[in-house]
Amino acid sequence: MTTLSTPGPTLGVVGGGQLGRMLAEAASPLGVEVIVLDPTPDCPAAPVAREQLVGGFDDEDGIRELAERADVLTFEIELADQDLLERIGEETATPVHPKPETLRVIHDKLVQKRALADAGVPVPPFRAVETAADVREAMADYGGPVMLKARTGGYDGRGNVPVETPEEAEKALESVAGPAMVEAFVDFEREVSVIAVKGEGEHATFPLGENRHEDEILWETIVPARSSEPVAERAREVASDVLAVMEGRGVYGIELFETVDGEILLNEIAPRPHNSGHWTIEGAVSSQFEQHVRAVLGWPLGSTDLRTPTVSTNLLGDVEESRPAALANVDRVLETPGAHLHWYGKQEVRPLRKMGHVTVTERDGEGREALLERAQRLRAAVTFDVDQ
Amino acid sequence: MTTLSTPGPTLGVVGGGQLGRMLAEAASPLGVEVIVLDPTPDCPAAPVAREQLVGGFDDEDGIRELAERADVLTFEIELADQDLLERIGEETATPVHPKPETLRVIHDKLVQKRALADAGVPVPPFRAVETAADVREAMADYGGPVMLKARTGGYDGRGNVPVETPEEAEKALESVAGPAMVEAFVDFEREVSVIAVKGEGEHATFPLGENRHEDEILWETIVPARSSEPVAERAREVASDVLAVMEGRGVYGIELFETVDGEILLNEIAPRPHNSGHWTIEGAVSSQFEQHVRAVLGWPLGSTDLRTPTVSTNLLGDVEESRPAALANVDRVLETPGAHLHWYGKQEVRPLRKMGHVTVTERDGEGREALLERAQRLRAAVTFDVDQ
Repeated sequence: MTTLSTPGPTLGVVGGGQLGRMLAEAASPLGVEVIVLDPTPDCPAAPVAREQLVGGFDDEDGIRELAERADVLTFEIELADQDLLERIGEETATPVHPKPETLRVIHDKLVQKRALADAGVPVPPFRAVETAADVREAMADYGGPVMLKARTGGYDGRGNVPVETPEEAEKALESVAGPAMVEAFVDFEREVSVIAVKGEGEHATFPLGENRHEDEILWETIVPARSSEPVAERAREVASDVLAVMEGRGVYGIELFETVDGEILLNEIAPRPHNSGHWTIEGAVSSQFEQHVRAVLGWPLGSTDLRTPTVSTNLLGDVEESRPAALANVDRVLETPGAHLHWYGKQEVRPLRKMGHVTVTERDGEGREALLERAQRLRAAVTFDVDQ
Repeated sequence: MTTLSTPGPTLGVVGGGQLGRMLAEAASPLGVEVIVLDPTPDCPAAPVAREQLVGGFDDEDGIRELAERADVLTFEIELADQDLLERIGEETATPVHPKPETLRVIHDKLVQKRALADAGVPVPPFRAVETAADVREAMADYGGPVMLKARTGGYDGRGNVPVETPEEAEKALESVAGPAMVEAFVDFEREVSVIAVKGEGEHATFPLGENRHEDEILWETIVPARSSEPVAERAREVASDVLAVMEGRGVYGIELFETVDGEILLNEIAPRPHNSGHWTIEGAVSSQFEQHVRAVLGWPLGSTDLRTPTVSTNLLGDVEESRPAALANVDRVLETPGAHLHWYGKQEVRPLRKMGHVTVTERDGEGREALLERAQRLRAAVTFDVDQ
């Protein structure tokens, strides 16, 4: 049985962006302290973390100091260096969760898809490609457009290039510049995601969320998704199957396609709390951040039950050029009952940069459509695009 | 309209105990930073605050530094020195909320009761006493036992001495040692409280909570209180009347008696977030801590609506002697769906010291009685009284 003392356990987190900040916010009530390693001085997590070590995600000295001061090492960005984490974890005898091995599998999208397909997780048709001829051959075999993906280094859709016609293959390959793969385009009804948690001898999944992307950036998540009950159940089942492939405890963001035929196919996996799970802070009994803290410490998981239908909408940088961050008309959010502001503390707003999010919970049984509209109107009422 | 930037506004908080800690937890999502002043190095709020200044609540240099670095000064203990706050607030042009004038009224229980009675707030019969003869005369006039109260310095029931028979008057007065008052004993059905928020040109009250005290220490709060609807409404009305007497923005904890006749009488006021409002973190749309942040900044208030029936139970030191804090069997709390642990990060457990609390939200319409029982069983399952 767990005994809690003061100071409680310390989490060493590689990365101190908004995920690290929300992790620290969730850790505090549990008596858990957070130290983050991030290259940006005064990173988003800094004001609420016990301390920030300033250093890169692959800064050996920084990671070693983090490991020595922490009871468990974890990361909030998949850019963390798995080899370094593995070696320092072993040298300092500090457990790393999720396991660096998982990062290794996820980092290379081809390796990832193969491991998942082998485990029976449904994935779109995919294959490695080296030449434009390979791409065209895949298009012929799949009978349509494909998504060309850099095998490594992608993030928020970066490194993904749609190839609609065979003529585009060369240019697409050039822009990816490096080992690549293609996937058949999925004719999807909607994009959905499951936040899944792997604990010590147990696992749990949150209710299905529906995601609206633009330019491969997440704009909104609607929970519960507007999928049928069997589809939602199937999605959570697939997420559980994905967890079985992942090594080490923690939260995983599992992005899925719901096809027009109601099939569930895996899209991508993030081995960390995920933007499409921010709704859980207000919308679920225990948030994805609290669950990550519990999981990596080997503590019992909390309930993933839905508290109320919820929409979260990202505060993306609606500016043409970078400038000091200032969000105008915040009162509109503050005044709205059930709207919850989450500010990430980034000093500079850049085009489409994630600066914060607003979560809106359902009022008076208004229904998801009205709720979604209300959230979108709120989002439209605030802006970074103000006179400087 | 409010514009939010990075860094956001800074709150300077006198006191860095659990209230300061939960204030910092609530401030972060709003982009608000917290600096606390507290005499205990590494106080409960320290791990999540931007910084702790180490200094007493009446440390002039400390308060001045706090004022210079903050956009608004506030306090989480009523022991804050009102004169110092007022003077430094003026000298540094930093607003102080609630107003030091309010502290002045609240500090002296006699002045407090007079101000409230004058404003039409219902209070039990009370009067100043100097001698044992005064006490006995009051007992004769009120027709029963009285509560003898030190006019200043009381806290968590300290300084309150029940006087059941005229013979006890001398000894009671001696134990209070200082200016005193008496109040008629209230034959109450239950003790209840309203958390009330005074904002900029608006105010709000949370649903009525029912409090169970032992030895004048709060053990549990049950929300909604088991009072009738008209009584609950009346209590919120009285709380609004109390707010009208208070100067300056912020959260006030307003403790009330519900008499056997269903009358509402004021008991005590705390000019800060209150232990009996901790349930709001999970049980209300916006917590008392978020409301305090919004209020003192002059931002719009959030919704005080109940999300779900809730019980909060304090983790009081169940030890005979002080010792390093270690709470055993925490898994029992962590495993319970809808149970939320709040650990205050105090290094030493002392008899009946407030070390944390657990909030339990209603499941499957179980009803308040079952919920309360469940919370009490949970509380009983964890203990600080373990082999050292």
